[in-house]
Amino acid sequence: MNPTAAPANDLFLRALRRQPVERTPVWLMRQAGRYLAEYRATRAKAGDFLALCKNPELACEVTLQPIERFGFDAAILFSDILTVPDAMGLGLHFVDNEGPAFHHPLRSEAAILNLPIPDPETELRYVMDAVRTIKAALAGRVPLIGFAGSPWTLATYMIEGAGSRDFVEAKRLRYDRPELLKILLAKLSEAVALYLAAQVRAGADALMVFDTWGGALDPQGYREFSLAAMREVIARLATLAPGVPVILFSKGAAGHLEEMSQTGCAALGVDWTASLADARNAVGNRVALQGNLDPTALFASPERVRELVAGVLADYGSGPGHIFNLGHGILQHTPIESVTALVEAVRELSPAYQRN
Amino acid sequence: MNPTAAPANDLFLRALRRQPVERTPVWLMRQAGRYLAEYRATRAKAGDFLALCKNPELACEVTLQPIERFGFDAAILFSDILTVPDAMGLGLHFVDNEGPAFHHPLRSEAAILNLPIPDPETELRYVMDAVRTIKAALAGRVPLIGFAGSPWTLATYMIEGAGSRDFVEAKRLRYDRPELLKILLAKLSEAVALYLAAQVRAGADALMVFDTWGGALDPQGYREFSLAAMREVIARLATLAPGVPVILFSKGAAGHLEEMSQTGCAALGVDWTASLADARNAVGNRVALQGNLDPTALFASPERVRELVAGVLADYGSGPGHIFNLGHGILQHTPIESVTALVEAVRELSPAYQRN
Repeated sequence: MNPTAAPANDLFLRALRRQPVERTPVWLMRQAGRYLAEYRATRAKAGDFLALCKNPELACEVTLQPIERFGFDAAILFSDILTVPDAMGLGLHFVDNEGPAFHHPLRSEAAILNLPIPDPETELRYVMDAVRTIKAALAGRVPLIGFAGSPWTLATYMIEGAGSRDFVEAKRLRYDRPELLKILLAKLSEAVALYLAAQVRAGADALMVFDTWGGALDPQGYREFSLAAMREVIARLATLAPGVPVILFSKGAAGHLEEMSQTGCAALGVDWTASLADARNAVGNRVALQGNLDPTALFASPERVRELVAGVLADYGSGPGHIFNLGHGILQHTPIESVTALVEAVRELSPAYQRN
Repeated sequence: MNPTAAPANDLFLRALRRQPVERTPVWLMRQAGRYLAEYRATRAKAGDFLALCKNPELACEVTLQPIERFGFDAAILFSDILTVPDAMGLGLHFVDNEGPAFHHPLRSEAAILNLPIPDPETELRYVMDAVRTIKAALAGRVPLIGFAGSPWTLATYMIEGAGSRDFVEAKRLRYDRPELLKILLAKLSEAVALYLAAQVRAGADALMVFDTWGGALDPQGYREFSLAAMREVIARLATLAPGVPVILFSKGAAGHLEEMSQTGCAALGVDWTASLADARNAVGNRVALQGNLDPTALFASPERVRELVAGVLADYGSGPGHIFNLGHGILQHTPIESVTALVEAVRELSPAYQRN
């Protein structure tokens, strides 16, 4: 099969373009994850999470596992949002039970000013190799989503040196040295756009920007530091990878959906704290919406999961432009039977919303 | 001085009632906290946090420290939101660097059904003694705020057994056994209302309900499980403590301000992710608003803090009904000079907004 041909299942790409579909496409954030026994087995083979990200064959293996088990309508590259800062020289590593950390966090103005823009084809070649390997292995069954962290979200980890609850250091920069933060965000916008464009050249059919910590900002800060940088990424991609749909996802930013929809993106991820009906009112016909079942809902019984899926479909309502997903990544101890119930419910219940 | 007379400084109570004030009153959530050297000294004397809560003389000492240092316009009882579940028999304790935990979390239907409603006058007598001691020590200088956790927020800790990131167990009940969760919330609504009414009898002039985790719910879940229980608390207080103003604060629930304003509360706490102008549009003239500077803004320079305070005052705009506060509790390592700059800026800049 020609890997550049349209995928056999193009529901996801059509929904992203708000074109008619026979049923609502479905995939889950972090669908290749620890809730799957086969993922845990491959990860054990790799050694640890980062080794798995850096091994194209094994990253391909885990990317395809949920496609094969559940028949999701899109695959997403298995990787981490912090590969870009790692390639900038910060030294990514993972501390047991505490998540990601950097050996060389940004602790000075000089560190920010001297930060290099990595060439993704060489310095992030292992990611591009993974994309090419996955693309070949998918053999056109479903589209492949490439992704990156948003500039603001990457900046929080790079400044704090690890995950954070309050983002005191990142926000000290936001409040005291906004011009320096903007220099950092401009570098990250360029690096992220180059990285995403390289993923497209390697075979990604669509792109997603994860802004995990945009919702931690005040409204003006969100606009000025998170949203503006994502708009810059999308503007660069319009030249670097024209026509490739981009999904923006700012967690905890339900109040900003309208302005997010005016960035040139194709779709918005919506977390479970918003109603899809309200979100649709806010964005009109400009973009598709992806979401938004609470990941913890999958700990309910399969019968209840089916009802909750029905609720999300009804909340979005009739017409094109809905991609079913969770409101955040699937959780580690999620029961497999709930995921099966979710996928079956979307397949069975969504055609009724797509007929007109 | 007669402790039942109106406080000498009644700016806070007038603002709560949306009456004219000469300047915007100011206090800070967690104003008696670890950022203060004198607090750390008293806490060391007490032994640990819980011992400090349970010692009325020392709880009074730390309650008054920020009033004396900064001249805040309201004092708030020094206590913890988890005193009520502790009195219900769950065995509250604090794990170093990990926060609160219960020896006997709710792990069965029977545990929920058998949960007693504590008599606050006896089983939470140490809190009422603290309120009486503080009230006498304040000698009418400023009003005293009593408080409790919201039923939903208390339920999350009681079900999870400790703090949580995803609330898997609490939400399993929300999705699979909503009727059982409602039984728990009904008990907590009664217990919280009795507890708050006892604080009023002991001397509290106003009340605040902290719904720290309401924002973790989906919109329907927020309405059904968090907001409905807070409405029940307020309805009970209308009989138990008529005329005492109640402030509701659901963190991360900026999208719910309008419905929160229709519960009979006097004011809403607003976190920093919302604009006060938008919040004011949402709630009209129904309630006062309290907030909403980002607590991390206090890590900026004092000059910048002054500008940020000016921004919050301008965002609220002219007219009555604003109480200046942070959008969440003050952080541990906050510099004292920032708090001084905040208070001075509110005192100097707010009269311009209160003249008409």
